[in-house]
Amino acid sequence: MKFCNQCGHAVSERIPEGDSRLRFVCDHCAVIHYQNPRVIAGTLPIHKGRVLLCRRAIEPRKGFWTLPAGFMENFETLEQAALRETLEEACARVRQPTLYTLFDIAQISQVHVFFRAELADLDFSAGEESLEVQLFEESEIPWADLAFPTVARTLKHYFADRQSGIFPVRNEELPAHRPLFEGNT
Amino acid sequence: MKFCNQCGHAVSERIPEGDSRLRFVCDHCAVIHYQNPRVIAGTLPIHKGRVLLCRRAIEPRKGFWTLPAGFMENFETLEQAALRETLEEACARVRQPTLYTLFDIAQISQVHVFFRAELADLDFSAGEESLEVQLFEESEIPWADLAFPTVARTLKHYFADRQSGIFPVRNEELPAHRPLFEGNT
Repeated sequence: MKFCNQCGHAVSERIPEGDSRLRFVCDHCAVIHYQNPRVIAGTLPIHKGRVLLCRRAIEPRKGFWTLPAGFMENFETLEQAALRETLEEACARVRQPTLYTLFDIAQISQVHVFFRAELADLDFSAGEESLEVQLFEESEIPWADLAFPTVARTLKHYFADRQSGIFPVRNEELPAHRPLFEGNT
Repeated sequence: MKFCNQCGHAVSERIPEGDSRLRFVCDHCAVIHYQNPRVIAGTLPIHKGRVLLCRRAIEPRKGFWTLPAGFMENFETLEQAALRETLEEACARVRQPTLYTLFDIAQISQVHVFFRAELADLDFSAGEESLEVQLFEESEIPWADLAFPTVARTLKHYFADRQSGIFPVRNEELPAHRPLFEGNT
């Protein structure tokens, strides 16, 4: 950030009075420009034990598989954001969304939230941001080609939890990207 | 938003190509300025069945009682934000924070997240944003003088859930302010 979005003058980075963090502050109109984490919301769409994944048509992680998810917009709820993204990326409608996983990716100031949900029907297809959309059995999940650690972790929790039929809501911190060569450590 | 924070030129509000929402877009450098909901994180600090509330020293809702909570900062987790706010507003340390309530206040593009937690000790006091900090029995809660609907709702859930000892994580949508005269409807 270089300029004040209220008055157009230059901003400088300093700790405002009574604060303890560096902020962008306008030297002309004194507005403090706070910056805060962003929320990504999505679903884990399920049909008879199979889960719906989308292969990304856009960066980051183009060509890799993800659960339908994206940035929460102003004036919507977490659930509305998750269902909208599911419709946009997988052209899919889901029923009975239930909060399932919340991940802190502090490193990049993001919170990822996933809802478990039942696919309403099999009328799904690739949206503009997807190359293809497909149902996977547990044994078919392309683990090495998943786009994000939060997607892998949500899938792992789901396959473990469904053995007991109990799906506790989980809040965990995860890195932005999986470490390279994690299989070798 | 009137000016681009990257180049200082005027922005205009329009729907970018491939998008479906109005965004502030810079006509000079073409940057799209997305705006997203903000997250407020806090705790429900408990000591032997009593809960810790803070009376607000600042607007909004100055003079009203709240749970310690505030805006999540970049590069922290939900839990870190909740514990930091508890320390800042109530000078209190808590143990075993557990995710409890998530509220969508879509009307003002906020998500409020509260963790249940045990007060670590009775060494608490009013931080800079609080007038006073006090432990309340259920029968002593100043229901008419609570600052925010998400605080009232978290307390109501807690007092109901502790009868069974089961505290499911809840996600609900709430209005920004309680309706006036709600007792009369």
